[in-house]
Amino acid sequence: MAGRRLVNRQLLSLCPPSARHSAPTHPISLARFASVDSSNGNDKDRKERVVILGSGWAGYGFARTLDPKKYERIMISPRSYFVFTPLLAGTAVGTLEFRATLESVRRLGLDSFHQGWADDIDFTKKTIRVEANTSDDLASRTHLLPTKSSKVQAEKGVMFDVPYDKLVIAVGSYTQTFGIEGVKEHANFLRDVGDARKIRLRVLQCFEKAALPTTTDEERKKLLHFAVVGGGPTGIEFAAELHDLIQDDLKKLYPDVMKYVGITVYDVAPKVLPMFDQTLANYAMETFRREGIKVKTQHHLTRIRPDDDTAGCLKLKIEELGDEEVDAGIVVWSTGLMQNPLVQKLEEKVFRPSLIAGSADPAPEVRLHKDAKTGSLLTNTHLNLTVVPSRLEQAKDTSSSILPDVYAIGDCAIIDGQVLPATAQVASQKASYLAKQLNKGTAGTTDFKFRNWGTMTYLGGWKAIHQSSADDLKGWAAWVLWRTAYLTKSMSIRNKIMVPIYWFISWVFGRDISRF
Amino acid sequence: MAGRRLVNRQLLSLCPPSARHSAPTHPISLARFASVDSSNGNDKDRKERVVILGSGWAGYGFARTLDPKKYERIMISPRSYFVFTPLLAGTAVGTLEFRATLESVRRLGLDSFHQGWADDIDFTKKTIRVEANTSDDLASRTHLLPTKSSKVQAEKGVMFDVPYDKLVIAVGSYTQTFGIEGVKEHANFLRDVGDARKIRLRVLQCFEKAALPTTTDEERKKLLHFAVVGGGPTGIEFAAELHDLIQDDLKKLYPDVMKYVGITVYDVAPKVLPMFDQTLANYAMETFRREGIKVKTQHHLTRIRPDDDTAGCLKLKIEELGDEEVDAGIVVWSTGLMQNPLVQKLEEKVFRPSLIAGSADPAPEVRLHKDAKTGSLLTNTHLNLTVVPSRLEQAKDTSSSILPDVYAIGDCAIIDGQVLPATAQVASQKASYLAKQLNKGTAGTTDFKFRNWGTMTYLGGWKAIHQSSADDLKGWAAWVLWRTAYLTKSMSIRNKIMVPIYWFISWVFGRDISRF
Repeated sequence: MAGRRLVNRQLLSLCPPSARHSAPTHPISLARFASVDSSNGNDKDRKERVVILGSGWAGYGFARTLDPKKYERIMISPRSYFVFTPLLAGTAVGTLEFRATLESVRRLGLDSFHQGWADDIDFTKKTIRVEANTSDDLASRTHLLPTKSSKVQAEKGVMFDVPYDKLVIAVGSYTQTFGIEGVKEHANFLRDVGDARKIRLRVLQCFEKAALPTTTDEERKKLLHFAVVGGGPTGIEFAAELHDLIQDDLKKLYPDVMKYVGITVYDVAPKVLPMFDQTLANYAMETFRREGIKVKTQHHLTRIRPDDDTAGCLKLKIEELGDEEVDAGIVVWSTGLMQNPLVQKLEEKVFRPSLIAGSADPAPEVRLHKDAKTGSLLTNTHLNLTVVPSRLEQAKDTSSSILPDVYAIGDCAIIDGQVLPATAQVASQKASYLAKQLNKGTAGTTDFKFRNWGTMTYLGGWKAIHQSSADDLKGWAAWVLWRTAYLTKSMSIRNKIMVPIYWFISWVFGRDISRF
Repeated sequence: MAGRRLVNRQLLSLCPPSARHSAPTHPISLARFASVDSSNGNDKDRKERVVILGSGWAGYGFARTLDPKKYERIMISPRSYFVFTPLLAGTAVGTLEFRATLESVRRLGLDSFHQGWADDIDFTKKTIRVEANTSDDLASRTHLLPTKSSKVQAEKGVMFDVPYDKLVIAVGSYTQTFGIEGVKEHANFLRDVGDARKIRLRVLQCFEKAALPTTTDEERKKLLHFAVVGGGPTGIEFAAELHDLIQDDLKKLYPDVMKYVGITVYDVAPKVLPMFDQTLANYAMETFRREGIKVKTQHHLTRIRPDDDTAGCLKLKIEELGDEEVDAGIVVWSTGLMQNPLVQKLEEKVFRPSLIAGSADPAPEVRLHKDAKTGSLLTNTHLNLTVVPSRLEQAKDTSSSILPDVYAIGDCAIIDGQVLPATAQVASQKASYLAKQLNKGTAGTTDFKFRNWGTMTYLGGWKAIHQSSADDLKGWAAWVLWRTAYLTKSMSIRNKIMVPIYWFISWVFGRDISRF
């Protein structure tokens, strides 16, 4: 313990005052640079410093499995918490308290946690440039590329460098908006707890506005049409949870406006829930039909704009419907992922690695090996990041070598030659595999193998579907499995106690519907 | 039930389309007018319509006690929830989840709830003009007068009228800032759950910023000085809860910055906790001294301004300290109350009541009887609002008469000739008394009598003080009483279950410190 504390103190005190004061401090850019030196070479007993970028399923899962007795663990993430994403749709409608989906990274007892974005990585010097994040509103930056006009881009946080011995890149992905007009500005996302809070407030606000005596029937119809774009598990589960909130709770409180309520899921594909087989997908569609949730497949959204007549409402232009726009009180967007800007930046770099195993000196210039289709970082089956020669004549050479001590897991990386979906399950298994290999000192020996635990989606009305290699389940039995699985996967004991309590309380007393 | 639903439907449909469309709709002011007519005179069996303004201790307490079989209950409040204020300081540091301090007014099963501000009252026509509130950020308007430049004042919500048979004014009070420069703009208040959330985020942000390797020691000292202005129970309890958060939880997570932490309570009076006798106040000061919380009495704050060098920090100018300013990461303001602007507006009105009991026709012009010192509305011992003749020659006449069917309770009203503090206890007892009198049909017969249940304040470190007419308690025994009393007074069964669970969870696992 004493050793760990010492390293920590050194980290804090290693910022040279000169670097601090010579930094540019003009009014818009708050960027300042300071270097955190750590070579610390004379200490032979020093534990290897493992820096983890990200606190999602991959980063958080890795950090909690890596043995603190063997490694110094340093995490860099814009969020000081891990979000248990499968429960987000539930919190967005008040079935659960927001905080029950969070695990504070500070509780992991890390040697150091820097709340900030990895802005760049120097693979030669083995340092990471970090931009500190001490703002409150993270949602706009953590999973959505800022628009050019957004204020967020102009304000940069304090900058400092963090050195690593081993690096685990688990920065995840951003939300894909396909450049569709108005999505970034007007749609709601469902990837962080702040998003869930915004959705919850807006849904309750729509009901509150619709119930006002001065609201016209036409406005009520606009306010109470809830549009979900994207028919994957997140979109479907949100529609299902919203249906439960309305049927179980809001129906009693706003009986007079119920006739104006509508939920519609839009998707460009010919069928929703592509990861489920036809029988289960059909069951889901039949369940939705009975619940009154409309599913519109092969519908292409081309624009979202604010409604000039009804404040807060939106107008959706859909290719298949011609000039007529669809009105909605809220649009929840859940269509897909795009690469993290850090990954894009890294893939453009040409560099000399500090050391390539088995290579002659000086090391030739390389660039990161990336997947041509998705832009993801490519790793080998040991999850090492791979590089390819940078020179033109060698560019056709498909042979890649590994970048020593650098690993990539989670949504930002795929294993060369394997097709695994960008899911929590894959991220979680890769994280656990890598940490265990490092703990045992056997990294680079055994291949990573994905074990499919099956896929589950909640459909509302205490019904779910579950598909796995062993067998398929649907209806109430799948719902029990869905709840139980989430419970056992929920990470801390605190949340293992709190989540069932919230479920029980919501079941007995109804969901809390205070707009706060 | 069918009858109640019918009334409800009528309310919603009684908005004439003509009134709606002829209303002004220029871009800044969104104000629109619509009248909700309800004379409904031919229905002899119709229940009397009691309109309640406010959802605090007085309004919420009254509404839940009034018999729905005998009266139609309509509530108008900018907040859709009641806040259990004694627990706010605890939620501000994460001992409790925010929502555990809230009770949704919609769960009261009211005949109607309008989320909005009472903008004006026509005592002649017996109608209330309501400005709808469907925004999310309530904090800035519900308890703080907006500054002239604030955007909030320009944006008016939809307007509509609500008629009443009986009216209960329980609009509460606003925060007193004594016109001190920068208080409204830069201080944090602790009156609503949104305030508690802001404080919580800011405190955690201060620690996060202080822990950055690039932060100087001087900046750390600024960030980690927490200033509380006002030595009443709210200010003292917040300082105590903050001390617990820092000692129990943050100390482990940020050991290196602990030496920069300081908490100071400032008050203009020569002693804090004026409602406690000297022995208990001394015990409180001794406890604070041991906990390292500084208390500076007879200190007059004259200005708060942002620190130009350290973003987010504040500089406090204090008369007694001359030109030297005090640095703080946050200022929590809890000094006193001022009149609600609706009360001020009503007190300026001259009107003819629709009927004054026993008066000749036509009714003479009157104005509301107000307390010269505090500006509060004056009531008789039956809590009826009182009026005085408006004409000059009669102004010297001190005799007042009652305004029939209009009552005032809570912080906005005092009983003529009685000195009762503006506390939750008084508000709650008045509410309960008035509702019971109306339920029994005995309003105007028995006088209201206040029973002092004693006063309690938490001091941190599992210690509290309790003072009542029977006996005084201090230390751990008072702490047990403090927790138990809050528990039994906490209103819904839901929160009676949740509050001890949160306390237990925080005790076992520590407070949640995710910045969300």
